[in-house]
Amino acid sequence: MLTMKDIAEELGVSVSTVSLVLNDRDRGRVRQDIADRVRARAEELGYVPNLLARGLKTRRSRTIGLVADKVATVPFAGQMLAGAQSAAWEEGYLLMVIDTGGNRELDGPATRALLQRDVEALVIAADYHREVSVPPHPRSVPAVVLDGRPADGDPADAVVPDDEGGARAATEHLIAAGHRRIGLVNIAGGTFVASELRRRGYQDAHTRAGLPLDPSLEWSVPDPSTPTSFGLARTVLQGPDRPTAVFCFSDQIALAFAQVAATLGIRVPEDLSLVGFDNQHFVADAMLPGLTTVQLPHFAMGEWAARRAIARLHGAADESGVLERIPCAVVERASVSPPPSP
Amino acid sequence: MLTMKDIAEELGVSVSTVSLVLNDRDRGRVRQDIADRVRARAEELGYVPNLLARGLKTRRSRTIGLVADKVATVPFAGQMLAGAQSAAWEEGYLLMVIDTGGNRELDGPATRALLQRDVEALVIAADYHREVSVPPHPRSVPAVVLDGRPADGDPADAVVPDDEGGARAATEHLIAAGHRRIGLVNIAGGTFVASELRRRGYQDAHTRAGLPLDPSLEWSVPDPSTPTSFGLARTVLQGPDRPTAVFCFSDQIALAFAQVAATLGIRVPEDLSLVGFDNQHFVADAMLPGLTTVQLPHFAMGEWAARRAIARLHGAADESGVLERIPCAVVERASVSPPPSP
Repeated sequence: MLTMKDIAEELGVSVSTVSLVLNDRDRGRVRQDIADRVRARAEELGYVPNLLARGLKTRRSRTIGLVADKVATVPFAGQMLAGAQSAAWEEGYLLMVIDTGGNRELDGPATRALLQRDVEALVIAADYHREVSVPPHPRSVPAVVLDGRPADGDPADAVVPDDEGGARAATEHLIAAGHRRIGLVNIAGGTFVASELRRRGYQDAHTRAGLPLDPSLEWSVPDPSTPTSFGLARTVLQGPDRPTAVFCFSDQIALAFAQVAATLGIRVPEDLSLVGFDNQHFVADAMLPGLTTVQLPHFAMGEWAARRAIARLHGAADESGVLERIPCAVVERASVSPPPSP
Repeated sequence: MLTMKDIAEELGVSVSTVSLVLNDRDRGRVRQDIADRVRARAEELGYVPNLLARGLKTRRSRTIGLVADKVATVPFAGQMLAGAQSAAWEEGYLLMVIDTGGNRELDGPATRALLQRDVEALVIAADYHREVSVPPHPRSVPAVVLDGRPADGDPADAVVPDDEGGARAATEHLIAAGHRRIGLVNIAGGTFVASELRRRGYQDAHTRAGLPLDPSLEWSVPDPSTPTSFGLARTVLQGPDRPTAVFCFSDQIALAFAQVAATLGIRVPEDLSLVGFDNQHFVADAMLPGLTTVQLPHFAMGEWAARRAIARLHGAADESGVLERIPCAVVERASVSPPPSP
């Protein structure tokens, strides 16, 4: 049976390089010519992932159940599923997914339906970083919360993005480019754990750089979608003494600012620098100029959740109640430049 | 057990209204006050979909296997899964999904892995409308192709969008607004079945309206993403005698045209009308002004595929080899107006 390791050895590259390429995650991480060689060789040799290549040899289901909140309407849900599936396959497991369509009342029934189909472990995925009630399940079936924190002292392991670190890095990126009047467009109210964390990161970057915080540069909108930000973008960009840079809670909000700026004759990045959050491919790459943003590590979180569930299943993880924070790196495109001269 | 029918009867609305609301598909289809009442009542009564509410009473798996091409990277894949899951639940089945990440060599192994887990029927989903080789499977396990056509005379049923009808409707919408110079931005080469079908629809609308076809108004780009269209958009919009309207193969291409138009001081829709295709929520709704486009019926196709698989499983579908075409309707937003006076 041909493995990723065989391909790696034959081509003299690392196994993780082969894994990135065969999971279509090589862009910006693996040199194009190497990726091409890995793909060509895998195809020539008829590479098939471990799990799919072999039959079921035991009576165990070798299946992990994943309860997802909103696969259909949240654009990054697919990356979490892909990450969880990728890690599960490497360990010889399939993933069985039920999407509750965002109706949290269904988490319990969905979990029972998966347990009836003999899943060996559970991943409970939220649609955004928040508290999650883990449905009742037998002790023998480990549960991991994905993109959320278990509520009420539940001992489940969990994985979340490092929102605070990501926001700090984004703000430091703007400070390093020379900006001193940096706006923050956040989400109002207490819906998102991430909004408080990202605000802390934004403020912390200022404090560490010895810069004063100006509360008049902090704004908020009701949700992270584009249309709800058009009005605020007009207010901010037409206001007196506007910021030279804006750090937005989401790429979609940054898209609103970019479009409104264009109608006002404000050039990005010459007149206004923009940084988003999420690295939503279909938004950040689609903007003119391309949007500098922060990677929400959905694929990596999905991988971590599945690996952790399987490790616990095999008794390989001692502690429980671990909360893993995955770093969120700045992804540079073309929407940041030094501020215009005053 | 409380059903959708009970809620419908109690509130004096149709079952399909309740289904639209409880599947979060009511926007633009069901009046807001009615949707609110349905949601409130369902929550009050603790409504749980049929399948999830009951246990497995037979030794059958009551599971349908779905092999998906690219859940993670194709933004509408989630809608196909949600549609298939919704129909499966109504019939008392769960959906088990394997994503091959776009590697078609894995279709066979993925299908075998699902069959080993006793799925009763198979749905093979493509990432876009194309020919699909249905992997070998027992005759007793019906297979349906979703968003594709079975290759090589395979007798599987299949469901695809009516690309030609959708493109005709989009072009007729522009003609009705008064446009006579309507550009078409299509995808080059033979990759997409849809590009030839949409071209036919565009041309047919002209012919039916008695308008001449001008080949100099047909352009193409290598793929449906935004960045590959920036260059063409500049050429088209800065060229002599530019079209008054452009019908784009995808919403993402329309986003490229809108952004380039903004940098050139060309106003949408006053100076240039735009129509897209897909109704990708995060693009069409995010544009300023909102994009008039054509609905790719991914949810409806997913529903059809799961229903058909289950009907065949129960011997309720006689014919095989049915190719179902789902209509693609124009979704009006704000990117179309009459052409500017010459």
